[in-house]
Amino acid sequence: MNEIKVKIPAVKASSYTIKIGANILESLWEQIDSAFKEHNKFVVTDSNLVSAGHLTKLIGQRDIETYVIEPPGETSKNINTLTSIIEAMEKACLGRDTVVIALGGGTVGDIAGFAASIFKRGVPVVQIPTTTVAQADSSVGGKTGVDSTISKNAFGTFWHPAAVYIDVALLDTLDDRQFRAGLVESVKHALIADAKYFDYLETNIDAILQREPDVLEKMACFNCRIKASVAQADPMEKNQRRMLNYGHTVGHAVESASGFDLLHGEAISIGIIAAGLIEIEMGLAKTDRLDRVKSILKKLNMPTTLPLALTKGQILGIIRMDKKSVNKWPKFALIEKIGRIYRQNEQWAHDVDQQIVEKVLDKLYE
Amino acid sequence: MNEIKVKIPAVKASSYTIKIGANILESLWEQIDSAFKEHNKFVVTDSNLVSAGHLTKLIGQRDIETYVIEPPGETSKNINTLTSIIEAMEKACLGRDTVVIALGGGTVGDIAGFAASIFKRGVPVVQIPTTTVAQADSSVGGKTGVDSTISKNAFGTFWHPAAVYIDVALLDTLDDRQFRAGLVESVKHALIADAKYFDYLETNIDAILQREPDVLEKMACFNCRIKASVAQADPMEKNQRRMLNYGHTVGHAVESASGFDLLHGEAISIGIIAAGLIEIEMGLAKTDRLDRVKSILKKLNMPTTLPLALTKGQILGIIRMDKKSVNKWPKFALIEKIGRIYRQNEQWAHDVDQQIVEKVLDKLYE
Repeated sequence: MNEIKVKIPAVKASSYTIKIGANILESLWEQIDSAFKEHNKFVVTDSNLVSAGHLTKLIGQRDIETYVIEPPGETSKNINTLTSIIEAMEKACLGRDTVVIALGGGTVGDIAGFAASIFKRGVPVVQIPTTTVAQADSSVGGKTGVDSTISKNAFGTFWHPAAVYIDVALLDTLDDRQFRAGLVESVKHALIADAKYFDYLETNIDAILQREPDVLEKMACFNCRIKASVAQADPMEKNQRRMLNYGHTVGHAVESASGFDLLHGEAISIGIIAAGLIEIEMGLAKTDRLDRVKSILKKLNMPTTLPLALTKGQILGIIRMDKKSVNKWPKFALIEKIGRIYRQNEQWAHDVDQQIVEKVLDKLYE
Repeated sequence: MNEIKVKIPAVKASSYTIKIGANILESLWEQIDSAFKEHNKFVVTDSNLVSAGHLTKLIGQRDIETYVIEPPGETSKNINTLTSIIEAMEKACLGRDTVVIALGGGTVGDIAGFAASIFKRGVPVVQIPTTTVAQADSSVGGKTGVDSTISKNAFGTFWHPAAVYIDVALLDTLDDRQFRAGLVESVKHALIADAKYFDYLETNIDAILQREPDVLEKMACFNCRIKASVAQADPMEKNQRRMLNYGHTVGHAVESASGFDLLHGEAISIGIIAAGLIEIEMGLAKTDRLDRVKSILKKLNMPTTLPLALTKGQILGIIRMDKKSVNKWPKFALIEKIGRIYRQNEQWAHDVDQQIVEKVLDKLYE
């Protein structure tokens, strides 16, 4: 037998910049244009952003190829939308010298990032997140994907953005439920990585809910620093990055079981409570810590118990198909105290007996 | 405005091994199993391979989750097949600890590699190519993809295999047309990179067509060395790798215009003649070189003129949408002499006036 060794060359370290400000949208096109002089531009957005006037603010009177996702939201985050975006790019005769610009929330960012990563084997993407959840979480870190009929982000890639622009003024037009649900990712960041940030959230909760730009900018900085430092330590989610999954194992299953009636943040709120209950079951925490977490989630009007319509069996079934599962049962990210993830034997996610999870789910109906 | 820099860490150089032999299929599973002890296995193949008995040879009596592509061939290389593969993997409750094993020709390898690259953001793939074209070309180098309704490989990624196993005995069951068409990639390799290989092909053409294992093994070595050395010098097809595209710019367009009635190799044969005619038009060659190329392609029973059913307008339209297009017109890989790609100003693909291409297309009907 003959053997030939094929070397795959190293890829150099690189970087991208996150810019954060208030009312910066109208000045962004020039920046993008000068950063991508040689590239054709292709914008992906959704009909909410168009009616809010944000697309016009971004592109002005320029004639830019644009794909508008309709209807907006998670129901469009599927392979059909992806296919029609790719085909729209083809019909516009775009080649590899194209940059995709994602203007929108998590759904737009995930789909547009995924489309960019697989269009003719990959073109750059610029993220302009417009929701609390996208600004805090999904626009940074390079995760992309769409859902299958079976589970969330079943299709996806790791594809880092070429740049991220966060305009907190865009949150002004966000409806209240979306705005509040998106703040759950900020609570999660504070819980896993920064006790001072948790204090800041508790202290400034009213200003946050009143959408004061200074406070929102400060939060964006906290969030992006935490997210970026974790993502760059572990870009492919081999270990450390799993801490970002705090509350997400049960949360994703709840979101999916609800048929996406629950918003991502609402489901993650329940998932964070589940993680807190698991910590108590495993002797990692007393109940007072969970009370503090529950209190801030309640101020955000987030659910902290399971809707009766969702059965335990449904949720367990989906947890078994979690994409981070190994041997068909996932590991769980847990915290040691507020602001610090729990680590043991260099692991950032841990085995939790299925019995404990079942017991915790029972408690979540109470 | 605040700025945060996100570092994307370097990725270390790595490598994979291509093993080449005759009648090695039955011994492969043990090798794969020991190389991927911790992984669940998922096989992707097609109904031709199943009826030829190759799947059974590979997995024996083991109970392995398998997806059988039906019908076999390019018509199945689309986003629907991809979606059902991903959903089959989900239904089997597979997680990121899965290795996809692609047993088949170029279509199977491209789809399975693409599925592996986007399943839960990426799992490893092992390629076991079973056709002349897959063994010579598509199994090595990390290109994956499926076609859109508009163009070939519109969706795709760069995703290197974790290992490649080439059993030349698998070519015995390949039908004659497929076998011959697949040899065109070998002719291409010789033309762009190795004059001695071209001599070898000319000298051994009868033994090749009689599928003598020793000669086929030698060819596999030639092919994989050439393919690997180019792919590792330029894994993301920024420049040098474009030489592998020799004959493919017109070839892909012809293949697509024919509605895939022409096999890939048959279309590339016409594309190689087109490249030769372009070289003559541009003063890079005299006609005797093209005669030699034409002669070997004719011995393979390959077409060297355009079918009258395909119009020039159709072909030009598709060329404009080529995925390597920059400003909506692609660059062309050309050769300086047999065995050496043409380079100018450090470029491996070149501007060719649209008028020249039109003139060459006219000549291709003669």
